[in-house]
Amino acid sequence: MAEYDNENVFAKILRGEMPSFKVYEDDNTYAFMDIMPRGDGHCLVIHKEPFRNILDGSPEQIATVHQTVQKVAKAAMKAFDADGISIQQFNEDAGGQIVFHYHVHIIPRKAGVRMGPSGVMGDMEEIKANGEKLAAVLS
Amino acid sequence: MAEYDNENVFAKILRGEMPSFKVYEDDNTYAFMDIMPRGDGHCLVIHKEPFRNILDGSPEQIATVHQTVQKVAKAAMKAFDADGISIQQFNEDAGGQIVFHYHVHIIPRKAGVRMGPSGVMGDMEEIKANGEKLAAVLS
Repeated sequence: MAEYDNENVFAKILRGEMPSFKVYEDDNTYAFMDIMPRGDGHCLVIHKEPFRNILDGSPEQIATVHQTVQKVAKAAMKAFDADGISIQQFNEDAGGQIVFHYHVHIIPRKAGVRMGPSGVMGDMEEIKANGEKLAAVLS
Repeated sequence: MAEYDNENVFAKILRGEMPSFKVYEDDNTYAFMDIMPRGDGHCLVIHKEPFRNILDGSPEQIATVHQTVQKVAKAAMKAFDADGISIQQFNEDAGGQIVFHYHVHIIPRKAGVRMGPSGVMGDMEEIKANGEKLAAVLS
């Protein structure tokens, strides 16, 4: 498997070299808004330690991320008055992965509303406002 | 939130009241083939304890499931000579959930092959053979 690339976008976000709309942070994990949201409130959870995906993370790292995923998912239900949550996590190119730092997508869903397309940049003001809503529930 | 329904399909599988193609089992988790595969080797991991989804599981239950997910995903890469893995996990109707016992989808992927449609029954002989391949790597 390829090695972890320290210049990936999420590594830069963790080092503060790129901006992000943070919604939650603890000793091990960091959660922030996806700027290509497939629905209102679409956010991501990552571990602060570097690993590419499910294939090279330790069992403890994977478990830790998913405990934060649960925390953020529950908060997103409240923040966006959501009816459900879809979780996605992609590994390697063929698995749909684009940024090679393990991350989990949390997509709040509304009844009857289809998930939007992937790869479409969202409105930054809306994303910022949604991030603030979610952060408020999590704080 | 609705209560856990003991008559859901996965509860019946865990009680042995319905068949499944088992690929892995430990004290806490159970993994088996999805009979509506969206790709060769599509399988599911569940906790043996009853909870509906990410909203009512305990952090420990969620973590435990994802440690088995990792184990099975790595094995699936080998068993199916896969190029990647897509993970999906659905919560509540609006989130895409159909069976209300927390479960995680593991979908092995091949470069250039799109994920198949959901809700289409697979060929049972093929699924059985894929389950045996995966179980062999996990044993």
